[in-house]
Amino acid sequence: MPSVSNKGLVMPESPIRKLVPFAEEAKKRGVKVYHLNIGQPDIKTPQVALDAVKHNTIQVLSYSRSEGSEEYRAKLSSYYKKHEIDVNYNDILITTGGSEALSFTMGSITDVGDEIIIPEPFYANYNGFATANGVKVVPVVSSIDNAFALPPIEKFESLITDKTKAILICNPGNPTGYLYSKEEIQQLRALVLQYDLFLIADEVYREFVYDGLTHYSVMQEENLEEHAIMIDSVSKRYSMCGARIGCIVSKNKKFMATALKFAQARLSPPTYAQIASEAALETPDSYFEAVNAEYQERRNVLIRELQKIDGVKVSSPKGAFYCVAELPVTDTDDFAQWLLESFEADNETVMVAPASGFYSSEGMGNNQVRIAYVLKKEDLIRSIEIIKKALRLYKQK
Amino acid sequence: MPSVSNKGLVMPESPIRKLVPFAEEAKKRGVKVYHLNIGQPDIKTPQVALDAVKHNTIQVLSYSRSEGSEEYRAKLSSYYKKHEIDVNYNDILITTGGSEALSFTMGSITDVGDEIIIPEPFYANYNGFATANGVKVVPVVSSIDNAFALPPIEKFESLITDKTKAILICNPGNPTGYLYSKEEIQQLRALVLQYDLFLIADEVYREFVYDGLTHYSVMQEENLEEHAIMIDSVSKRYSMCGARIGCIVSKNKKFMATALKFAQARLSPPTYAQIASEAALETPDSYFEAVNAEYQERRNVLIRELQKIDGVKVSSPKGAFYCVAELPVTDTDDFAQWLLESFEADNETVMVAPASGFYSSEGMGNNQVRIAYVLKKEDLIRSIEIIKKALRLYKQK
Repeated sequence: MPSVSNKGLVMPESPIRKLVPFAEEAKKRGVKVYHLNIGQPDIKTPQVALDAVKHNTIQVLSYSRSEGSEEYRAKLSSYYKKHEIDVNYNDILITTGGSEALSFTMGSITDVGDEIIIPEPFYANYNGFATANGVKVVPVVSSIDNAFALPPIEKFESLITDKTKAILICNPGNPTGYLYSKEEIQQLRALVLQYDLFLIADEVYREFVYDGLTHYSVMQEENLEEHAIMIDSVSKRYSMCGARIGCIVSKNKKFMATALKFAQARLSPPTYAQIASEAALETPDSYFEAVNAEYQERRNVLIRELQKIDGVKVSSPKGAFYCVAELPVTDTDDFAQWLLESFEADNETVMVAPASGFYSSEGMGNNQVRIAYVLKKEDLIRSIEIIKKALRLYKQK
Repeated sequence: MPSVSNKGLVMPESPIRKLVPFAEEAKKRGVKVYHLNIGQPDIKTPQVALDAVKHNTIQVLSYSRSEGSEEYRAKLSSYYKKHEIDVNYNDILITTGGSEALSFTMGSITDVGDEIIIPEPFYANYNGFATANGVKVVPVVSSIDNAFALPPIEKFESLITDKTKAILICNPGNPTGYLYSKEEIQQLRALVLQYDLFLIADEVYREFVYDGLTHYSVMQEENLEEHAIMIDSVSKRYSMCGARIGCIVSKNKKFMATALKFAQARLSPPTYAQIASEAALETPDSYFEAVNAEYQERRNVLIRELQKIDGVKVSSPKGAFYCVAELPVTDTDDFAQWLLESFEADNETVMVAPASGFYSSEGMGNNQVRIAYVLKKEDLIRSIEIIKKALRLYKQK
């Protein structure tokens, strides 16, 4: 039998995937499962986006341009200008989700064996895109005791080698919810200028920022034009995860020309989804205000309830819709499986994402979970009550 | 300035891309351009597929499963059974176009430096996916004088090294239109069994077969289960290029499990496009009969008209909707550009794809072009008339 590739073998599995069969089993037993494990919002997609697809007049569903339609990119640049990001349509390449934007970016800036430094815990699929592209992820640990703030710049510096091509941050962070300050971005700016690296910022949660804080983009920094690469997506902003539309934004012409070659090879991003995404730009501000108010309340409820549990440590997220919580257990992989396999409270249980999958360093995050606050408040309260009961019983095992 | 990757630099550009600005200039001068250069059919997408999207009832446009919805895969397996390909839903992985299917397949079976043997001329983007995956394409030349039939098996055999992981064919072929016979597939079967290789067949043009011939799939061969990988797509079959839905089909469980990891990293294929693709399976047979009759007539007209030109050699394609023609010029890159830049006949000209981009061997295909017969007959006749006039004038340059 012919053999699959070594890179295929080491491609990491989704940290949640192995729990899915246990969740399905639980449901078969009639147990209700609250899903805190995945960033799939329950928020309705803006009507204007849904309607645009329903009222499309396509007769021949043809390819779009590889870089995305010019109209959409022009409108996107206006959206960015509203957010104090001064880019033109030709600084934007439309991709099939933020996923493809990350993959093309890695492919365009790295050769096999090159390294990218990423503060951990980080979005688990960064590992997947890195493996597929032959790139080595070099983690720099951020700590729950410091709310997952940017690690000291000296720590980054000590990890830079002649293979290092970029630093990648997620701002606000998945899974941490951490919002980087302007000062932190400027620290990274100085570093990438000194060592001639790219600074990649995954800003797909840009609009989910709480407590009156403001998001600061790498694209707002002056004299960083040749170094800054922004990754974006419509998935979370408009609750349009299934569209699969994202983009790469950069003023580095050579990088963009290279990324375009990757885009040409796959012909074009999906056409219906571009219609929805272009229309979504007409979403009224009131939509975002309502959504943000809802998430902020959910976060408040979640953190308040979690803090009531003995032995639980949690850092209050300032953005996105995740938090990382430390639980009084030694192996959250086991605990998460046990929740689905062996526990129920009045016929209900919860599914959480064990955090080890969000770390690249061996042995990190084993007592942490990621909780996505994508459920309504009553369900969040009930979920945390279930976790509290479960922790008590689990300890007695 | 940080540098882009070497693989990024060698990523091939689309063979047509460099001609696009010249086509745009011609249009600005008021010249009508007949596009024979791209496989974008003018055929209407089946109404049942368009309607399914228009009548969708989505409220939250959420992720689908990474491997595609189970309903769609189940229906697809019925479609394949109708075509004597006996597969189940779990032998199918839905991808974002045939492009992603090819990329995931290469990623899943090769390590950096591994080789894939491909009869050339071949679909130009195979080069792109190979480069992105660090794979070396090893071409084996097929000849226009032999209608681009399978090269002798000894030629394949002489190219096999310990780095060879697969043989990749396109059946029917883009750009050649060649339809492999059952005997040719069986020759390849014996070879991949002997050397323990994968046999990848890109069968996206399966339904476009003329002259009463029948398509024979690698999935129909017995005892090839662990070796055969089929690439498919809805793009051409239903004139739905912009959907971006394809799939990988294989009974090799280890390979499929590996490909699934690549699929999980990018979360899911596009949701609207899956709705269209699932509905497209209800397309009545009469649609295909009409489309095939139309293409066959177009082919007949195209070949007949081409053969009337002195010095033009063309092999009559048996499938797909392309043909490769040899022209009495030494450099079709130059000729194709000249057609757009310096020639017009009654204010009209044509755009063709120079064939050198479909070869990986240096210097091959310089006197060939690929012509896509995706225009209606009158336009094809007019296009060839233009080429005829142009060739006369070009020779006198």
